[in-house]
This record gives sequence, structure tokens and C-alpha cells, in this order.
Amino acid sequence: MTEQTRAVLVKAALRAIYNSSFESIGVAAITEQAGVPKGSFYHWFSSKEELAGAAIDAFADAGAQLRKELLADDGRPPIERLRAYFEHSILLLKKQKLKNGCMLGNLSLEMAGRSELLRMHLNAGFERWETALREVLIEAKFRGELSVDLDPSEVAAYLLNGWEGALLRMKATRSDLPLILFMRFVFDGLLKQK
Amino acid sequence: MTEQTRAVLVKAALRAIYNSSFESIGVAAITEQAGVPKGSFYHWFSSKEELAGAAIDAFADAGAQLRKELLADDGRPPIERLRAYFEHSILLLKKQKLKNGCMLGNLSLEMAGRSELLRMHLNAGFERWETALREVLIEAKFRGELSVDLDPSEVAAYLLNGWEGALLRMKATRSDLPLILFMRFVFDGLLKQK
Repeated sequence: MTEQTRAVLVKAALRAIYNSSFESIGVAAITEQAGVPKGSFYHWFSSKEELAGAAIDAFADAGAQLRKELLADDGRPPIERLRAYFEHSILLLKKQKLKNGCMLGNLSLEMAGRSELLRMHLNAGFERWETALREVLIEAKFRGELSVDLDPSEVAAYLLNGWEGALLRMKATRSDLPLILFMRFVFDGLLKQK
Repeated sequence: MTEQTRAVLVKAALRAIYNSSFESIGVAAITEQAGVPKGSFYHWFSSKEELAGAAIDAFADAGAQLRKELLADDGRPPIERLRAYFEHSILLLKKQKLKNGCMLGNLSLEMAGRSELLRMHLNAGFERWETALREVLIEAKFRGELSVDLDPSEVAAYLLNGWEGALLRMKATRSDLPLILFMRFVFDGLLKQK
């Protein structure tokens, strides 16, 4: 019953939920996938819902790590780093053959209306993401690279929501066109305006 | 075994899927909800998946009817009609306490990666919607109300995707702020530019 068992369960849940949905997975399948006895599950989690909450946090942690690497000030202008961050994300999505999208988005539509616990985990994950985008946009504004008409907080939220919408449509069309459109309207339009 | 039985089943499925998810509903619950014997289900549908496809089409039909009423040329400028259409949609979402969102979006994230049949129904529903938006934007362009830099087809797709993203975030935050931001960036920004 080490902490490692917990981490293995979270990782298995993350993969299972990411590949299908919350509803379609079962505790038995997750413990089997994780290679731990079913009993140990209830040592760490009181319910599948609680495990899903931990999986959401793990997904958000991984995202935060990626943003830390890609959005940190490395001498390039902030908007350029922001563009590179989204371009990198598109490459990752293509590696997954445009099938998975974003776990926060997927679970928001499936579970946010039915589980207040999961909704709060999802909301927190989005907030962390939005904060990271906002910080880069504030830097851009400070350096005069963002139109004076634009508010970094509002732009950060609008970008994140638009990105989630592009991912959703990507899944329905099985094409990267929605992502390309997003990049064009945001980086050649909105963020270029003076 | 009248056609009406089929319609009642589709309506019950539509409500069930809209309120929860594809995975979490069962044929037994739908036939019970519809008040028809379980056997009659298999007279009309070979699987729950096929029924869900019909429910998606019914949702898309209802959307098309609404757009026909709200987007048709009634003498007002096209962009004004477009704004009124989205504002009306926001009112409907508020009536549902921001809980449901869009069935096409919900099912896209849940099922598009797992059912090619449902993905095609979802894709078709989005295409119809996008076409209706595009027609209004083409009219706006023709009347000189849309920036010459903007392509009506691209704007239509970008709006639809952005709207789906705003709905997704609305569910996670349980707030209408994402919808308000969408309206502001689209109607006070993108569609105002010259």
C-alpha cells in the first residue's frame, strides 16, 4: 500500500478516462490495468469519482509542466512563445491521430453537469491553464505587443475556450482544420491588431 | 408499431442523452421512458447506437428550425440577425440553468472517437449549422458589412467552434461569463473590424 500504488492507479485512470469516458470505465478494469488488487483501490479512494478527481489533477499537473517549459521567458517575444506553445500542442494532437483532445474538455461535457466534485476539479484545472496564458499576455501588453483595446485576462479566457472548441470540432471532423483556423484567427487576427 | 412509436423513442433518447450521456443510458430505460414495450425498440432500431444517430438528427432538425426562424432575412442587417440568434440561444441556455449545453458538442467529445457512425451524424449536424451561419455571413459580405479581409466560410467555422468552446467552459464554470466573452470578442471585435 505504498504511495506508488496510488500513483499507478491514478495513471491507469487517467489513461482509461482519456481513451474513453468516465461512465464507461470500471474500478475493476482500472485495478487490473494498474496491476494492483481491487482491495487496494478502496484504501486510497472512496469512489471512482474521487479517483477521477485525482486523474484530472494529474492531467492538469502535466499541462502545467508543459506550459512551464514552453511559455517561460527564454528571450523570445511573449506572443511568439504563445504561438509556439499552441503549435507544439497541435503536434501532440496529431501524434494521437486527432482522437483524444483534452481531458478537461472531454470530462467537462460528460461530467460537469452531474458531479459537483469533478466540476470543481475541472474548473481548477482550467483556471491554472488560463492563469498561465494570462501571464504571457500581461507580459505582451507590458511590452506593447498587445493592442491597448485588449484585456489580457479576457483574451486568456477567450483563447482557452476557443481552443477547447477547436479540439471538440477536431474530434467531430477528424481533421486538424479547426486547429488551423484557430491559429489563424488568433495569431494573424486578434493578437496582431493594433 | 406506428411511425409514431419511432418518434417517441427518438424523443426519449434525445432527452436521456441530453441530460446525461450515451454510455449511461440503456435501451430498457429509454423504452420505459417512452412508454413502449422493449420489443418494439428492435423493430425500429438495430442498436442503441443507431437510435443515438436518429436522436442527433432530431436535435439537428430542431436547430435548423430555430435558425430558419431567427436568421431568415426579415429586413434587419445580417450581422444583427446573427447576434440576435446567439442572444436567443443564451437565453435558452439560461433557462436550462447552464447545465445542458449542446448535444452535438457533448456527444462529439464522448463518442466521436469511438463510433464512426455517430461521428458522421455529429459531423453532418455541425455542417448544417455552419452552412446556415455562412449564408448570413455571405449576405453581410455582399452588403459590405463584413471586413474584406474575412472569408464567410472561415468565419462561420470559427464562430461555431468558438461557440462550442464557450458552452464547454460554461459547463465547467457553471457561469455565463464564457458566453458573454464570446459575444464581445465576436460581435464587438471580429465582426466590427473594417
